Amino acid sequence: MPKPNLFYAQSGGVTSVINASACGVIETARKHRSQIGKVYAGLNGIVGALNENLIDTGKESATSIAALRSTPAGAFGSCRYKLKSFEENQQEYERLMAVFRAHNIRYFLYNGGGDSQDTANKVSQLSQAMNFPISCIGIPKTVDNDLPITDTCPGFGSVAKYVAVSIREAGLDVASMCESSTKVFVMEVMGRHAGWIAGAAGLASEQQGDAPHIILFPEIAFNKEKFLKKVQTCVRKFGYCAIVVSEGANYGNGQFLADAGGKDAFGHVQLGGVAPFVANTIKEALGYKYHWAVADYLQRAARHIASATDVEQAYAVGQAAVEFALAGKDAVMPTIVRRPTKQYRWEIGEAKLSDVANREKMMPRSFISRDGFHITSAARDYFAPLIAGEDYPFYKDGLPQYARLKRALEKKKLKKWQAS
Amino acid sequence: MPKPNLFYAQSGGVTSVINASACGVIETARKHRSQIGKVYAGLNGIVGALNENLIDTGKESATSIAALRSTPAGAFGSCRYKLKSFEENQQEYERLMAVFRAHNIRYFLYNGGGDSQDTANKVSQLSQAMNFPISCIGIPKTVDNDLPITDTCPGFGSVAKYVAVSIREAGLDVASMCESSTKVFVMEVMGRHAGWIAGAAGLASEQQGDAPHIILFPEIAFNKEKFLKKVQTCVRKFGYCAIVVSEGANYGNGQFLADAGGKDAFGHVQLGGVAPFVANTIKEALGYKYHWAVADYLQRAARHIASATDVEQAYAVGQAAVEFALAGKDAVMPTIVRRPTKQYRWEIGEAKLSDVANREKMMPRSFISRDGFHITSAARDYFAPLIAGEDYPFYKDGLPQYARLKRALEKKKLKKWQAS
Repeated sequence: MPKPNLFYAQSGGVTSVINASACGVIETARKHRSQIGKVYAGLNGIVGALNENLIDTGKESATSIAALRSTPAGAFGSCRYKLKSFEENQQEYERLMAVFRAHNIRYFLYNGGGDSQDTANKVSQLSQAMNFPISCIGIPKTVDNDLPITDTCPGFGSVAKYVAVSIREAGLDVASMCESSTKVFVMEVMGRHAGWIAGAAGLASEQQGDAPHIILFPEIAFNKEKFLKKVQTCVRKFGYCAIVVSEGANYGNGQFLADAGGKDAFGHVQLGGVAPFVANTIKEALGYKYHWAVADYLQRAARHIASATDVEQAYAVGQAAVEFALAGKDAVMPTIVRRPTKQYRWEIGEAKLSDVANREKMMPRSFISRDGFHITSAARDYFAPLIAGEDYPFYKDGLPQYARLKRALEKKKLKKWQAS
Repeated sequence: MPKPNLFYAQSGGVTSVINASACGVIETARKHRSQIGKVYAGLNGIVGALNENLIDTGKESATSIAALRSTPAGAFGSCRYKLKSFEENQQEYERLMAVFRAHNIRYFLYNGGGDSQDTANKVSQLSQAMNFPISCIGIPKTVDNDLPITDTCPGFGSVAKYVAVSIREAGLDVASMCESSTKVFVMEVMGRHAGWIAGAAGLASEQQGDAPHIILFPEIAFNKEKFLKKVQTCVRKFGYCAIVVSEGANYGNGQFLADAGGKDAFGHVQLGGVAPFVANTIKEALGYKYHWAVADYLQRAARHIASATDVEQAYAVGQAAVEFALAGKDAVMPTIVRRPTKQYRWEIGEAKLSDVANREKMMPRSFISRDGFHITSAARDYFAPLIAGEDYPFYKDGLPQYARLKRALEKKKLKKWQAS
């Protein structure tokens, strides 16, 4: 009987450490050649399975695979593609099973957020029902840090570090110039539904007067009057005001600040994000000169400033996923468990996919200060270890050298798939 | 006779390495205690001299001064304040001279761009005329890289490295997702008058298909049709298109792209920068899903990813400035001279302030490819060594530890100054 093969796919928005999980999967699988045949990666995620575009990772050198540990984004391609429910699109699931069967894939490792864990769970159920049991293991990933059960999500710690470092540095810039120039700086960060990323930026302020002075969370309804008063107080007290705003900042009635600007003179939807909106709100009311930045993808791709803790955890969940699969586990996801020690320690735990799928973990209100504009010491205790340690990529000629894979595709065995 | 004192000031927009120059100045001066008395730094630049706010750097520990080498922004405060011509505001120059005389300041080291070199030159002339000769030495600084004579300006190499690293990383992110999501990414960088910074981002593309695919320079008049065609070609060929746009991108008639959007529905000047404008132009014409980033101050404050070459040069010009002053030189600025060797070598040179002041060095057309959308190999040869090497700051608990100075002010000797 041929050895069972393994299929790994990256799903949804990528992170600076999702390839570290891929590295953990492939390196661990290579250590178990007696139990695992080929390790396939889906070209562009699950779409690669549907189209039978299976990258044969066996064609990649050990050096290339090792380089994945320090390469940001999704080296095999990811996708925004959510499988519908089994009832809605039975054909799609049947196609997946046909591809898995044709290539003797008995291990399905899906690296993504809540939606992806749901998909992995469904594939598990279907494979049982279709009498071709596949060990389905989820691998956690999301910069949004919103998966339940796991203490944190690989990808988050590095974004957290990026935003904290960035606002510390930009804050010093503004502090230097505020006497005669810019007095307000606004940095927009990701996190449409929860303020995890915005909150982590708060780590940068260690002493009174340090940036950021104000954080605008999605969890706290924006109160313009209160906000402007706080800005004015900061400028009077410290000479300037550095603000971190979550892209999800809103009025508490479902309306995002970023959507509030309406259309421009040409009838276009306003182009700016929430940072320019907030900056302009201040300018109009208080007259302060401002600058703003929108980090966008720079923050989640910033492997050059990744958290060493995050990289280790990303690798560890990839490694654990293979070990879970080999142990005969199914429909589970490795998690990060924080040990109740004074010094930060973590270990790998396990969660059922059915408990993880489609559930968002919100940031507790106890992480936000009473006035709603900063983080509490409880939040600091939670965030601080996640950004600890530096894990620099290798540089050549001043630039980080990231993996370049061959991405050789396995020969197809099935007819081309036509989505219904 | 009391030993002559030294006055150092930071001027204009700060950089991630201007404090390395300050470190070079102070550490070198401390090695010559027999010739230099106190080393003062202006609180908020030249304004500190006018207001007699002189920071006594002698109160700072050797550790604090050493930490300046890896601290971004202006640790003593900078300012946007240009002295008028002597004819226009004689009183201001006389006040400067009065402060210098009161505190026995015989060395004036001014760390800034073209305007500042002009000021230093004027102070030199005036001090001669007023029979209180002061050795005036300029120290080059500007992320814009637009000072003449010097091969490069300290501050530029680190911004160059930041933008090249950032577009490489974000490019990988977009490449991962482009099959089913974002196809166009636009990153806005500084450089209102010249494309030095935008051009340096081009270093990130080493092989065909690498980001950035398109660079929009201030030097090349924006041609919408040609640009859109190029974007479409990239998306068809590589699956996505990563664009770097200079804030100074324009139509060739003096109108900036960023200013072209007019006013929004409330009559406000459009909030977005040039990145959202370019992204939206593409969306409207070609329908591609886009993301955009505006790095703003993050780029010039990003000490965490500074170029080691840049840090060394910033320190060296600070050191050289003190040595020039001690050698009795006046009205000169240390420069970076590129040796004509195959491997990059540089040494300190010297330029007259009168040759440096108020002259902008533009990027040569030979640095821009024929189609106007990328850099040439001549540009790569120039840029590459400037971003070489990493010079990481010290981290504690996951965050870079930057100098915190006492900034103790010298006792005032003069009456409060009232600007006319």
